[in-house]
Amino acid sequence: MKSLANLFADIPEQSSQELFSTLLDHPHCRIERIVSYGQSSPDEFWYNQTWDEWVLLLQGSSELNVEGQMVKLVPGDHLLIKSGQKHRVTHTDQNQPTVWLAIHFNEPAKC
Amino acid sequence: MKSLANLFADIPEQSSQELFSTLLDHPHCRIERIVSYGQSSPDEFWYNQTWDEWVLLLQGSSELNVEGQMVKLVPGDHLLIKSGQKHRVTHTDQNQPTVWLAIHFNEPAKC
Repeated sequence: MKSLANLFADIPEQSSQELFSTLLDHPHCRIERIVSYGQSSPDEFWYNQTWDEWVLLLQGSSELNVEGQMVKLVPGDHLLIKSGQKHRVTHTDQNQPTVWLAIHFNEPAKC
Repeated sequence: MKSLANLFADIPEQSSQELFSTLLDHPHCRIERIVSYGQSSPDEFWYNQTWDEWVLLLQGSSELNVEGQMVKLVPGDHLLIKSGQKHRVTHTDQNQPTVWLAIHFNEPAKC
């Protein structure tokens, strides 16, 4: 019987920092687990990426600001954040770890 | 407030067939939700794909046969099935819907 990696393993109950783990680094996409402990983006900080990112919230809750539009996420909610769409995390759950799956779409290979 | 798609929405309690839904069709990868209701692959049937696939089990349970190796999955378990790795589903949960997330890595563009 093959033993498997589990997305919900090794999640500390508390952490002063968000935890980022690469689950799979594939030439096309990087699959990442993010665990947040009530953290949010620093004031005035915006993510502004040169690649598309798809996020799926799996546990906890959060709120994003995507180009001024507030987006509240509960488990199962997913959205695509397009390259160049400025976004920030305005809130994550204060009472439990918030677990995200993020798919970062690598830029196409230059031919 | 933006309304979001939810992976756990629209899951019937019962279905005589597995349900396949594309959540995102991106040039690099296709993200799919699969819901199984106790189904398994037909006898002697093997998937044999020309692309890599990453699967994450989110609800229920299942067992795969990957090239003769049995792999039991519980929620959070994930694995990469490489292109050309023959595999079949030998078991899915009889008591509840089994929910999978599958990332199908598209073949690289021909340059």
